[in-house]
Amino acid sequence: MGNIIRERLAALRALMTEKGIDAYLVPTDDFHSSEYVGDYFKCRKYIIGFTGSAGTAVVMKDMAGLWTDGRYFIQAEQQLAGSTVTLFKMGEPDVPTVHEFLEKNLAEGQCLGFDGRTVGAKEADELAEKLSTKKVSIVCDVDLVGEIWTDRPALSCQPVSELDVKWAGKSRADKLADVRKVMKEKEADVFLLTCLDDIAWLLNIRGGDIECNPVVLSYLAMTQQEVLLFANEKAFSDAVRKALEADGVTLRPYDDVYAYAAGLDCESVFGKIKEGSICETETGSKNKSDDTAAGNFSGKVSEGTEGSEDKTGRNPGDCCVHAKNPQSKYPAGSVKAENPTGRSLSVLLCRKKVNSRLVSSIPKNVRVIDEENPTLLPKAIKNPVEVENERIAHIKDGVAVTKFIYWLKKNVGKIPMTELSAADYLNSLRAQQEHFMGNSFEPIISVGPHAAINHYSATPETDVPIEPEGLLLADTGGQYLEGTTDITRTIVLGPVTEEQKKYFTAVLRGMLNLAGAKFLYGCCGLNLDYLARGPLWELGQNFNHGTGHGVGYYLNVHEGPNGFRWKIVPERNDSAVLEEGMITSDEPGYYVAGAYGIRHENLIVCKKAEKTDFGQFMCFETLTMVPFDLDGIVPEQMTGREREMLNAYHAQVYEKISPYLEEDERVWLREATKAI
Amino acid sequence: MGNIIRERLAALRALMTEKGIDAYLVPTDDFHSSEYVGDYFKCRKYIIGFTGSAGTAVVMKDMAGLWTDGRYFIQAEQQLAGSTVTLFKMGEPDVPTVHEFLEKNLAEGQCLGFDGRTVGAKEADELAEKLSTKKVSIVCDVDLVGEIWTDRPALSCQPVSELDVKWAGKSRADKLADVRKVMKEKEADVFLLTCLDDIAWLLNIRGGDIECNPVVLSYLAMTQQEVLLFANEKAFSDAVRKALEADGVTLRPYDDVYAYAAGLDCESVFGKIKEGSICETETGSKNKSDDTAAGNFSGKVSEGTEGSEDKTGRNPGDCCVHAKNPQSKYPAGSVKAENPTGRSLSVLLCRKKVNSRLVSSIPKNVRVIDEENPTLLPKAIKNPVEVENERIAHIKDGVAVTKFIYWLKKNVGKIPMTELSAADYLNSLRAQQEHFMGNSFEPIISVGPHAAINHYSATPETDVPIEPEGLLLADTGGQYLEGTTDITRTIVLGPVTEEQKKYFTAVLRGMLNLAGAKFLYGCCGLNLDYLARGPLWELGQNFNHGTGHGVGYYLNVHEGPNGFRWKIVPERNDSAVLEEGMITSDEPGYYVAGAYGIRHENLIVCKKAEKTDFGQFMCFETLTMVPFDLDGIVPEQMTGREREMLNAYHAQVYEKISPYLEEDERVWLREATKAI
Repeated sequence: MGNIIRERLAALRALMTEKGIDAYLVPTDDFHSSEYVGDYFKCRKYIIGFTGSAGTAVVMKDMAGLWTDGRYFIQAEQQLAGSTVTLFKMGEPDVPTVHEFLEKNLAEGQCLGFDGRTVGAKEADELAEKLSTKKVSIVCDVDLVGEIWTDRPALSCQPVSELDVKWAGKSRADKLADVRKVMKEKEADVFLLTCLDDIAWLLNIRGGDIECNPVVLSYLAMTQQEVLLFANEKAFSDAVRKALEADGVTLRPYDDVYAYAAGLDCESVFGKIKEGSICETETGSKNKSDDTAAGNFSGKVSEGTEGSEDKTGRNPGDCCVHAKNPQSKYPAGSVKAENPTGRSLSVLLCRKKVNSRLVSSIPKNVRVIDEENPTLLPKAIKNPVEVENERIAHIKDGVAVTKFIYWLKKNVGKIPMTELSAADYLNSLRAQQEHFMGNSFEPIISVGPHAAINHYSATPETDVPIEPEGLLLADTGGQYLEGTTDITRTIVLGPVTEEQKKYFTAVLRGMLNLAGAKFLYGCCGLNLDYLARGPLWELGQNFNHGTGHGVGYYLNVHEGPNGFRWKIVPERNDSAVLEEGMITSDEPGYYVAGAYGIRHENLIVCKKAEKTDFGQFMCFETLTMVPFDLDGIVPEQMTGREREMLNAYHAQVYEKISPYLEEDERVWLREATKAI
Repeated sequence: MGNIIRERLAALRALMTEKGIDAYLVPTDDFHSSEYVGDYFKCRKYIIGFTGSAGTAVVMKDMAGLWTDGRYFIQAEQQLAGSTVTLFKMGEPDVPTVHEFLEKNLAEGQCLGFDGRTVGAKEADELAEKLSTKKVSIVCDVDLVGEIWTDRPALSCQPVSELDVKWAGKSRADKLADVRKVMKEKEADVFLLTCLDDIAWLLNIRGGDIECNPVVLSYLAMTQQEVLLFANEKAFSDAVRKALEADGVTLRPYDDVYAYAAGLDCESVFGKIKEGSICETETGSKNKSDDTAAGNFSGKVSEGTEGSEDKTGRNPGDCCVHAKNPQSKYPAGSVKAENPTGRSLSVLLCRKKVNSRLVSSIPKNVRVIDEENPTLLPKAIKNPVEVENERIAHIKDGVAVTKFIYWLKKNVGKIPMTELSAADYLNSLRAQQEHFMGNSFEPIISVGPHAAINHYSATPETDVPIEPEGLLLADTGGQYLEGTTDITRTIVLGPVTEEQKKYFTAVLRGMLNLAGAKFLYGCCGLNLDYLARGPLWELGQNFNHGTGHGVGYYLNVHEGPNGFRWKIVPERNDSAVLEEGMITSDEPGYYVAGAYGIRHENLIVCKKAEKTDFGQFMCFETLTMVPFDLDGIVPEQMTGREREMLNAYHAQVYEKISPYLEEDERVWLREATKAI
């Protein structure tokens, strides 16, 4: 592999020289700020050979580097061997960030290049500002890796289906009306949405363009009059297309969104031309810097690559500033159509999420309203139909996982099983459930030291047999029409140490205490995280990951803006006030590198408790319905309240799951859920 | 009183008409953003008759209003009766903020006036920005209330003493050197400090210019070469003045700080004039708006009042923008002296805390570095000597309060006592302790419904007898050379209800759980507050105040940046990461209006616990040493750990306090601290 990578780097460098680019940046992102990306978008993997889900590559004439985080240090070191690529271990002392590295290593007047579609507008602005002191120019209308990637996979084009309102709980028309109301409040004429899960949620459609994430590769632009969905029309059946059209949603080619943005003017938005009417435009000087479309990009910027549309999906004229907008029918500020509001034309978008090339395609006289997508919160706040469906999904999922645990504990040491084969078996149990649509993420079935590696997922190379000893960690989830599940159980396979039981119990106490919290409305995850960590912190221990993340409805298993963590991580956007209907995972853990790992995870939905003179109290209802392994628990370590919470939960698990079990399974479950 | 207020308002309005001012704003603040202010500064009390510690008055031609918060609604209604002043209840639905009210009620082109010395620069900027849309002009170089206040008290001039390094733990010279290091790092040529407790801390001096707050009315300006202390020199003995001079601290008249600021240029800062050398200045256009001294004040602004210094302490030419700077020896930007750094002249100050008149006195070509005062954190992080002294102060204070509780419980119903007389008695016990310097705040001794009123402090009008029934809440504190104390105990005087005991216990559980927290370094109060509120929240109850505040060292009983609360209140600045040496109060409570109040308060100092692979763990040591009344506790409501924590604390109280008690007190204390 090292040879191949060296060849690819040489080809990229030749192209860089040709274009006058001194450093080329390759992030992990697709064009939509997705957490996971389709094969078409895996440029960083192609150019340096690292397969992890997070990391950024920088290629310069005399160096190439990968920045990635602690989860991937070992994997990256192995995969970069012989490639000449240097590993920068993010978060380690004295390791610069990518931005710091570029600021330091680019000389005055040099040029940085990247594909502006793979970098959010906010980040691009920050980078441009950092580099402006050294007068570094930026070229962002290129896709150099795309140009040398001869066997690049095609863009995914999985069939799109409608999600019936009986699953979604709210019609597409109602959701669009809600967004239009927000647009009016914010005086936005256009709303540009590029987050794939938000688009799927808003239009009640699902697809399969990213593994485990049932999203549709698309951009969306809407006004009070119309909704344009920029996507590959081949993915849409006639029926789906007609259903969308019935709600005013028109399909346009995926790449056309850049031309649409560049052509934004009163005529394109409001349609009519009236003689003598005026479309008010703002002057540049009146705009604040963060309100202008092009942001603070400075220095020399490419004026765009001419030529017809190429296979990378790039449009001619897409570039980071408005040297020209060939797609715009009228020069910026021209007087051609009327804005009925009397204001200047405005576009609502989230600079953090919309890619920089799209934002900079917007004419400069259009006012950009940079705010969180108005779809984010209603997507996170599950409506009552969604919550009721989720309860059903979790019973189905609970039946599958409970059967799996019974099978595992009964058969371990008796029949051959490995991490991979066990995952397959669990998958087959889930597949027996009605409306099962696939895994919600790559299953983690890990034993021994593997369980201490966060985000480990067995491959044929790493797979090991499951033996009747120690602990097995199973973190898996399913997609159902009734919702998305995500559950972790740690199973006692045989003899375990007192230490393992101590931490098994401590982690469980944290999980129970967080799920059992009652709190005043207004709290966010930050206020409650101590409940999950306290039992470990008391022992001088911790786990190095967040305690919980928001979960979508038959959508992405990770979504914002809710979550549990003890320190705000701004780019995570998961510290929102907990609202009724938000579903969050509650998953503390404990890991001993090279030895074992423990994690207990339930999904909990936020609900209203009583309202008193002091305000509205909130609490959680646990959705996940699978027993915790009593073989790992030391009851004496638990408080009375903690034991009560566990016993009440187990009683509920038995009540809800046992009707769907065989007799032997039911007998086992009664014992497995007995009060302690 | 109503008549007097109406007359004063009429006089103010006449002056407003004369000066062309349509609305006049009177905040509570002195010129130093102090929480409590001296009598000289009580303009708001003078003009509308309201005596509360928080509130803002607005006077217009046809209205006068007071904005205050929930603590003061009843008091304000009573005190405003007959005055024609309208009460605006802050935080109630549909009640505008002062800024919103002014924005709505000032007409286009009208004029707002206030004394710019009583409004922070940041707030003044925000107000100016809000009003700029209506082209409202601002006059802020006036003190209209001062002009009509014929019998205004003089500025306080209490004697200043030095705090020996055996109490302060660090010499003045070392503290100044630390600040100068920060100034170098931040490339600041001048540091302007106006917070009274920060100045007292930095110079190791104490005074008495605000009741209970041992501060010295002063401003401080320092460079790498000199320290100027603007204060009334009559407050300084020769010995103190000489000691200050020995460390390079020179006294200047209190009011001269405005002329100093106006005259800031390279010569005034660096002293020497070299022919042909250049003092680099920045052009206005290069400055960002928040870096320019005058901020975003806009609209018409007064050009300053001519005349000699008047008794209000106002200097001619002090105004909010630089129409002219008569005190400046050279026009802004002139080339007269050299800045050895080669940079433009820069001043470090905190716009939130430095008053707007002082900030706007600074020439426009001087760069303002707006950051938190570099004194804030080292003042909050008590050094080892201070912490050791605090332990001693708390034993002395604990002896006084323990004796008080014994006396109270023994004598209630037998000898006459009232809220006021009991406070006097406690004060006499504290006064017996060596190095006692006075109360750290107005003592709160309250029984029955009075205890439900936050910040109640008995007056001869409200004083009631203490009877052998229900609960007494005693929130008091002392100033000692060894530190500042703040303690609340709730004492059972006689029969109490089951409900009272339930909440007494719940509040105590919260207090103990917070003090017993172990947590990773990096946590702030927000992460831990749930521990204090959880037991009440579980019962659907709450208390409407923060859980804890930072406490000074023989200084202000309230200080930042540490604290405990569950929602960030930006203007409070009390959500800093908890550092070793920070002292914070831990004081949950429970209040039933019209019936009773409960609060338990200890001071706790943050300490390092073990360091493990996961990082540095932190915990708290309790400083306060006084028993909690076992008569109010329901042991069955507490967990085993909570009982253990209480018993261990009580054992410590007995060990540390009993040696200083009489025999009868000691016998009682043994019983009062017995294990439950």
